[in-house]
Amino acid sequence: MALINENYFKLKAGYLFPEIGRRVKEFSEANPERKIIKMGIGDVTMPLVESVLKAFHKGVDEQGKAESFKGYGPEQGYSFLRELIAENDYNKRGIDISADDIFISDGSKCDTGNIQEIFGFNNKVAICDPVYPVYADTTVMSGKTGECNDIGYFEGMVYMPCTEENGFVPELPKGKADLIFLCYPNNPTGTVATKEELKKWVDYAIENKSIILFDGAYEAFITDKNIPRSIYEIEGAEKVAIEFRSFSKTAGFTGTRCAYTVVPSQLLAYDEKGEAHAVKPLWSRRQSTKFNGVSYPVQKAAAAIYSNEGKKEVQEVINYYLENASIMKEKLSEAGFTVYGGDNAPYVWVKTKDNKTSWEFFDMVLNKAGVVGTPGSGFGPSGEGYFRFSAFAERANVIEAMENIKKLFQ
Amino acid sequence: MALINENYFKLKAGYLFPEIGRRVKEFSEANPERKIIKMGIGDVTMPLVESVLKAFHKGVDEQGKAESFKGYGPEQGYSFLRELIAENDYNKRGIDISADDIFISDGSKCDTGNIQEIFGFNNKVAICDPVYPVYADTTVMSGKTGECNDIGYFEGMVYMPCTEENGFVPELPKGKADLIFLCYPNNPTGTVATKEELKKWVDYAIENKSIILFDGAYEAFITDKNIPRSIYEIEGAEKVAIEFRSFSKTAGFTGTRCAYTVVPSQLLAYDEKGEAHAVKPLWSRRQSTKFNGVSYPVQKAAAAIYSNEGKKEVQEVINYYLENASIMKEKLSEAGFTVYGGDNAPYVWVKTKDNKTSWEFFDMVLNKAGVVGTPGSGFGPSGEGYFRFSAFAERANVIEAMENIKKLFQ
Repeated sequence: MALINENYFKLKAGYLFPEIGRRVKEFSEANPERKIIKMGIGDVTMPLVESVLKAFHKGVDEQGKAESFKGYGPEQGYSFLRELIAENDYNKRGIDISADDIFISDGSKCDTGNIQEIFGFNNKVAICDPVYPVYADTTVMSGKTGECNDIGYFEGMVYMPCTEENGFVPELPKGKADLIFLCYPNNPTGTVATKEELKKWVDYAIENKSIILFDGAYEAFITDKNIPRSIYEIEGAEKVAIEFRSFSKTAGFTGTRCAYTVVPSQLLAYDEKGEAHAVKPLWSRRQSTKFNGVSYPVQKAAAAIYSNEGKKEVQEVINYYLENASIMKEKLSEAGFTVYGGDNAPYVWVKTKDNKTSWEFFDMVLNKAGVVGTPGSGFGPSGEGYFRFSAFAERANVIEAMENIKKLFQ
Repeated sequence: MALINENYFKLKAGYLFPEIGRRVKEFSEANPERKIIKMGIGDVTMPLVESVLKAFHKGVDEQGKAESFKGYGPEQGYSFLRELIAENDYNKRGIDISADDIFISDGSKCDTGNIQEIFGFNNKVAICDPVYPVYADTTVMSGKTGECNDIGYFEGMVYMPCTEENGFVPELPKGKADLIFLCYPNNPTGTVATKEELKKWVDYAIENKSIILFDGAYEAFITDKNIPRSIYEIEGAEKVAIEFRSFSKTAGFTGTRCAYTVVPSQLLAYDEKGEAHAVKPLWSRRQSTKFNGVSYPVQKAAAAIYSNEGKKEVQEVINYYLENASIMKEKLSEAGFTVYGGDNAPYVWVKTKDNKTSWEFFDMVLNKAGVVGTPGSGFGPSGEGYFRFSAFAERANVIEAMENIKKLFQ
């Protein structure tokens, strides 16, 4: 008798975005004449830049000729891309990460979920609250938790509330935490962590032999020179941290698919007897057994981001989104809202007014301003009373949306 | 303390292909003047066909314009591709599979490994011997087996020997088998299963509430009209089988990456209490949580395979490889070998002579004929005394390799 993985039944049925979709559909069916501006899902809107397109086409052309055709590539990714990443994203910033520590993949969502496979079942997983739901869901699916309680917390998971009081950087967990998910610049709050704050985590991980799973998907949006762009800027992090990076938000690759994960040679995990083992060979084995590498033309396209022209073009797009975020912050502040994030991130995290719940605010903003955002409570109980606006939108729409909201709340 | 998944240590260190690589390197360093013809790894050699290239470029162009740009796509794949698959690969052959049952992915290797996540730990997994190593390794990694014994069998796994005696279609397992991996046309033996043989398996699965994981990656190579191209040609299979298909071998996508998995709505698995549950929602949840869909231009490229022009072009490539296989069969038979496969598959499975082991034969063929193949014992103990030649090679090389072997053994 084929048995299912019953852990799936622990997951909460209603995922955030389907519920948003349902309410938006209902509204637009009732009000077919009303324009709706979508600032909910964190999906980019600007097309791929010129040099990426050129390299992408060239990669496709190579697949059309016997002499340049590429079959199976290295599961870890082509070295031409891994070397560019090591050099530009790390070495040039004084970080000692080698191309051999980098694993190209088709997305950080895949990687942050799949990484759990190489760790044992008896690990305690710590996540922030609010949080990108994938860390929690994949932990539940892998069988490391019990049931979900009324608040929305899974038994056996360590929750780290991120609130106004702690500047959205959580306190160290009081109990045991073996695998710790951190995401900075943060999704959903748009806040960042200073070097000192990250050092606190690296020190904790070294002391407790824990591993930090550091999601840096929004690193390209950091403008403040004092904010670390990589966990490896912190001394000792290479022994206790895995870093996830993506071209999705950096270069508009959400529909093109390319990301990478850094597993330094020095990173250690332990067997039940407490003996240390290098983690990299396990991830290498996982990837070579269950993955066949990223499409060759896509890797060529990603490599173009690191050309001089590519860097310039990609930065222009990032600046466009950051300017959106800046407009959002300004207008929402003028409307009397307390606003977080948005300076070094494409997300703005807004406190609702008059003690409105996140969903009450959602309905009000949708119905009266025609704007779709994301209710903070969808990211965890500590997100209640907050609301996320995404800067991934067209400028004219951003301005219109903010004007509508200003009129509504002023 | 971060704990590793210790199941990884049960895996045998030496994977087949690295060992082949090592011996080939050693030989070519000792004999730099000798030509080596590679017929080992099952990787395609012909470039992408014209209509696929055209669609691929068009997809890239769309990513360069705001009005046609695609961000996150549906995790299950775009319906334009799923509908073409349902229509062409199933409905037109009288099989009732809907687009909604199809999940586009970046490879069958990923899917045959990842599928295990939605099933419980207490399933007994059955695999053929010899077998594509991924089924076994992913089962071990997921913790469903014990240690490996001296023969190379993992404790707790059900092995089904495929031998000359049973025509390389195994007997039904005597004990319990909950998840059964089958692959036809078979890798590595190149043999096929008749309708009657597959019916035996579907009946077994229905009776035992098991699930068949049917790998049809080489389906496009079937020339015999009486051989089923899909497990769903067998009555009742939609209740007990998942089918994996890939564009890798069908259309030269090994470096481009696109595949699909069929999980019919009717397919059931069970909880510990014996209650039945539909499997499709679980796979859908797994994919939407841990996967972000396949690159949009790649899906456009894959869709072109189903155009009239695309079908013709792809068939020509398949015919080229099949003609290679036919030449290999003929020449190897002339050289006095007993040869299997190759009629409906890109693999030829050869019995060695004079009781030579697979690796002895490998060394002899490499050293004396300059040809690289794959030792059968690398696919499992029942592969000992056999050797796999891949038809994915250039015609001139195939002819030269076969002449060299003929001279050597005649």
